[in-house]
Amino acid sequence: MLRRALYRQVKVSAPASTANLGPGFDVFGLAIDAYSDEVELVLEDDKSDSYSDSSSSSIPSIDSLTIEVHGSSMNAEHIPEAAEYNSAGLALLSMMKAYNIRDRIRVRVNKGIPAGYGLGSSAASAVAAVKALDVMYDLGLDDVTLLRHAAQGEIASAGTVHYDNVAASLLGGFVIVRQEPLYTVKVEPPEDLLLCVATPKVDVPKGKTGVARSVLPEKIMLRQMVSNVANASMLVAGFLMKDTRLIADAMMRDVVVEPARMHIIPAYASVKKAALDAGALAVTISGAGPSILIVVDANDNVKDVVDAVDTAYSREGIECYVKVCKIAGGVSVLECR
Amino acid sequence: MLRRALYRQVKVSAPASTANLGPGFDVFGLAIDAYSDEVELVLEDDKSDSYSDSSSSSIPSIDSLTIEVHGSSMNAEHIPEAAEYNSAGLALLSMMKAYNIRDRIRVRVNKGIPAGYGLGSSAASAVAAVKALDVMYDLGLDDVTLLRHAAQGEIASAGTVHYDNVAASLLGGFVIVRQEPLYTVKVEPPEDLLLCVATPKVDVPKGKTGVARSVLPEKIMLRQMVSNVANASMLVAGFLMKDTRLIADAMMRDVVVEPARMHIIPAYASVKKAALDAGALAVTISGAGPSILIVVDANDNVKDVVDAVDTAYSREGIECYVKVCKIAGGVSVLECR
Repeated sequence: MLRRALYRQVKVSAPASTANLGPGFDVFGLAIDAYSDEVELVLEDDKSDSYSDSSSSSIPSIDSLTIEVHGSSMNAEHIPEAAEYNSAGLALLSMMKAYNIRDRIRVRVNKGIPAGYGLGSSAASAVAAVKALDVMYDLGLDDVTLLRHAAQGEIASAGTVHYDNVAASLLGGFVIVRQEPLYTVKVEPPEDLLLCVATPKVDVPKGKTGVARSVLPEKIMLRQMVSNVANASMLVAGFLMKDTRLIADAMMRDVVVEPARMHIIPAYASVKKAALDAGALAVTISGAGPSILIVVDANDNVKDVVDAVDTAYSREGIECYVKVCKIAGGVSVLECR
Repeated sequence: MLRRALYRQVKVSAPASTANLGPGFDVFGLAIDAYSDEVELVLEDDKSDSYSDSSSSSIPSIDSLTIEVHGSSMNAEHIPEAAEYNSAGLALLSMMKAYNIRDRIRVRVNKGIPAGYGLGSSAASAVAAVKALDVMYDLGLDDVTLLRHAAQGEIASAGTVHYDNVAASLLGGFVIVRQEPLYTVKVEPPEDLLLCVATPKVDVPKGKTGVARSVLPEKIMLRQMVSNVANASMLVAGFLMKDTRLIADAMMRDVVVEPARMHIIPAYASVKKAALDAGALAVTISGAGPSILIVVDANDNVKDVVDAVDTAYSREGIECYVKVCKIAGGVSVLECR
């Protein structure tokens, strides 16, 4: 049965996110209110009223979607508008095939999130897109189903399906994701958890996530696993017990991914040292980088940390954006018409 | 300065424990009320009143301790009474050296916990011993310090210092342990968490823990770490959110230790299948085995599970003890005189 749209136009916003948080590689995601993407779906020619029309009965394909990328966030101009290379496009196609949606849809992606900087940009676009389609066709899909489709979008940017950023962007807060079988647990973070993301204005190569994955060891020592399991467990306990110090302490103790990746993150060692010297509670790589996630103490001088980070990048000749932020809620519907 | 005893006789009890809980190898411990050990310290000749006595000023050594092992728990008769091979002895010596305790002490260990069966027997004796000494000399040591000394006792049975069983036995409840730097987080488990430990009456070789460690891979795939981090995180969230189903589900998903060890655990596959078929929520190896830990649903027919486990062992010609139990509190002081 062909699906009929309930609305002709739906606009949805999804927050940026940071993944890994140190020991939780490919497992932890955290939604942050530093940036967000908006996706607006507009029905181009509503064929759901005229079932006889031949074009509407064609299999949903890349031709069903016209994608426009707007916005002036870093790197937005390099985001492909071809549906098969665009995270929102891939996610929407996956869903349209699953639910037999054959209308032509215009997709306006308004980028607020720097693209390719480890802040879940592609995930946010995909999440906003699948939520918009869910609302537009009144599908009432559950979170895990939305997650599965949104994660298809990650193939466009990362080459593989992974769920940490999409889960955080969809659900908000702190999210634990298990991939096989897919399952998520969302936890409300401590209210006073204050963060800072620093994004260096450097060129990010196409396929950056692939590079960031290629530097990881394929095999690790069993004792490294024990260490990361312990600290990931401490971090989860910290979120549930609303203990920011415990979260920050555990975040700093990844013995697998940070040591392997830090040399590909511009100015990482010096920015980390500067932030900690200025009183930051924790510093880690945001997702695959090059952005850096910093936990700051709300009672301390946040400005000191921001200034120190700024100065550290400058000293290495790198311009940067530093944003103080808090935990974000998940995806939200802005408008349905 | 020589320490003077506050009491001449102190008796302490410490519960059995189960470690690992699937994905939390060397990280998770859980105190269980299935069994417990009692340790009584008795001052043999109180030299703390006569500082001039030469024997009291000798360095604390194995000669300071006379250890007697009583009790009829499985394997109790094989526990060495020489202080340097006894977990309570090693733990006490570590503490006596650290706090300059030079009295001669008689140590009566009353074993209630099957020894060498993966139920934290050596840990419980060590924990009870250090707590008793702490009380006897009014040292007022904090948990981490007691933990460090108690863990020295594990060298007697396992050959290495590890903290999962000692932490659970000391603190009670569910405990997350990070070894380096040493830190513990204790979580109160859901009140309705009902467990079952099945202990097969098989010969356990000396150095069993060493064997159980030797079958583990030295290196693992990175993706195995990701899976275990995810499920350990789910398990921690389950304990904190009091969600028994989540705990049980995560407990079953260890992809590293159980697959490597199950072939050395007598009748493991058939007992696991029998328990699950009878309605158990989860089955895993208790510590280094051969005991098996089973999570049962308090609302279901626990007797069915116990009978099924019993029958499965019998079919393989193995006698077993099956104990239904709940989570235990930590170490407790029974008597000071």
